[in-house]
Amino acid sequence: MPQRGLILFAHGARAASWAAPFERLRDMTQARMPDARVALAFLELMTPQLPELAAQLVADGVAQITVVPVFLGQGGHVLRDLPLLLEQLRQEHPGVAFQVAGAVGEDPTVLAAMTDYCVNAAGDAA
Amino acid sequence: MPQRGLILFAHGARAASWAAPFERLRDMTQARMPDARVALAFLELMTPQLPELAAQLVADGVAQITVVPVFLGQGGHVLRDLPLLLEQLRQEHPGVAFQVAGAVGEDPTVLAAMTDYCVNAAGDAA
Repeated sequence: MPQRGLILFAHGARAASWAAPFERLRDMTQARMPDARVALAFLELMTPQLPELAAQLVADGVAQITVVPVFLGQGGHVLRDLPLLLEQLRQEHPGVAFQVAGAVGEDPTVLAAMTDYCVNAAGDAA
Repeated sequence: MPQRGLILFAHGARAASWAAPFERLRDMTQARMPDARVALAFLELMTPQLPELAAQLVADGVAQITVVPVFLGQGGHVLRDLPLLLEQLRQEHPGVAFQVAGAVGEDPTVLAAMTDYCVNAAGDAA
């Protein structure tokens, strides 16, 4: 069976510190999916970027790739940039099945965890 | 006792759809803290922005404000822009206690929920 790939797709930033939670997310997800290839790609300002990472996974034999936008909301990056990138990927790698999940921040469980965090943050300040 | 305020501070985007999860987060947090004033402010591209919203809360009698950066990571917006904004707020509103929480995306429980989401997203595509 061909290996599955999971690409966590994040924005990127100039500050190196910005990548830390995404790297933790990648490591935690990889630990839960030892048979899959879990990797982190950026839209801009950080590397690897999505086309480069996808090409590497394909070269390594991954034939089914799910892209998870690690974005809080559906802005232009998720609504416009990502579909264009996916269209290019599907043209460049016609033998590979690409799927795209919804933005992480739209997930009800993630929203519930963020709510807990906000409530606790207010309590700490009381 | 003066009313407490909680400001969820998000980036903002050109696409109106981007605000939806932040509005849900605000509503869910407000429901858990009925005695506090919970509001949403943006760094750019959307309104209200932080100085404007904080001034409104202060005018309404809120004397203790916690700002929660609803950002996934600590990039320049959280590390540089937000401290500058807070410095201005403290100068403009010397009688108000401002506190700043860490970025939402750095919270272990939020990260765990995002991990679940990524693992499930890969499973759905299988």
